[in-house]
Amino acid sequence: MSTASTRVPQQERSRATQARLLEATVDCLVEHGWSGTTTTVIAARAGVSRGAQLHHYPTKAALVTAAVGHLAERRADELRTEAEALPAGPQRLDRVVDLLGAAFTGPLFVAALELWVAARTDPELRDALVPLEATVGREMHRLTVSLLGVDERRPGVREAVQATLDLLRGLGVANLLSDDSARRTALLTTWKRQLATLLTP
Amino acid sequence: MSTASTRVPQQERSRATQARLLEATVDCLVEHGWSGTTTTVIAARAGVSRGAQLHHYPTKAALVTAAVGHLAERRADELRTEAEALPAGPQRLDRVVDLLGAAFTGPLFVAALELWVAARTDPELRDALVPLEATVGREMHRLTVSLLGVDERRPGVREAVQATLDLLRGLGVANLLSDDSARRTALLTTWKRQLATLLTP
Repeated sequence: MSTASTRVPQQERSRATQARLLEATVDCLVEHGWSGTTTTVIAARAGVSRGAQLHHYPTKAALVTAAVGHLAERRADELRTEAEALPAGPQRLDRVVDLLGAAFTGPLFVAALELWVAARTDPELRDALVPLEATVGREMHRLTVSLLGVDERRPGVREAVQATLDLLRGLGVANLLSDDSARRTALLTTWKRQLATLLTP
Repeated sequence: MSTASTRVPQQERSRATQARLLEATVDCLVEHGWSGTTTTVIAARAGVSRGAQLHHYPTKAALVTAAVGHLAERRADELRTEAEALPAGPQRLDRVVDLLGAAFTGPLFVAALELWVAARTDPELRDALVPLEATVGREMHRLTVSLLGVDERRPGVREAVQATLDLLRGLGVANLLSDDSARRTALLTTWKRQLATLLTP
């Protein structure tokens, strides 16, 4: 009994330490970029010892990949929760596009883009990231289909959802150095009308 | 006379040195990324002395910004030349989108993306890059309108051109770590049909 009861809090402490490290990693990537992000800086920011950090995530590549994977899952959960509050009917599509537009200009997108670009010239990071990119991409597509409440077996639906996500990725990059929100809002207003037409049986 | 005739070759030599430095800069960014790109590596690659490099471009920010600006102009010229060979009629739109799709997955896009992302957390580079980003963005828009041979005063044309370029930027990012060409080709085939509808009076 006493062994079991010590083990559970220890597992909880481990999970809490991991969560703090992962959050600190994304904050570091957003604030300092890939080249300014070091495992030492992350451990200090998370208030975690170097030993504990190395125990949970032995390399920078392991840590940043886990961080982006973890945050992508958390962001997907948040999107699902936010979407539950959305109205049914034609307004729903507009609000879903707004939610996705916010996701593609938020901290997770910025952190992920730092990694995608760094991985291009860093073989260790690339090996860790390519499978994650595929998973996150698939999940994002499924989530969008589900939030929009559309049937992907209908012709054109898959392509319309893909185009929406690629467009949002492009808009995310356009927002990196300057506030592009006015242009983005206008462009997405037009896109929502097109998307509604493409998705209507 | 003799002064003038020595001056002209010297100016030519200067221009040739600058061109070699700018080409070497883009090659370095593509091959090593922002963090692996140093002015020393660039000077060595261009076969230019450190002194000459510092004379023409005193900082890394000045050099990389000039390089991307120079290459964006050269790429725009190439696109104009390639577009001259395109057929008129409905096929033209498809071929213009193909040319742009190639531009957004080529070395200049990759080099520019390295800078955009690095500039997010590098104030000196950011100051140099924000005006260039605005100019390049405007020129790319104008060029696309001109290649497509459309009239931007017509309602919807401006938004359709913008959406095309934002979509292509998103597709360029999706191609960074893995060859996304099969998916991109399929998606652009659908997009060409939509764009044709949007641009038809």
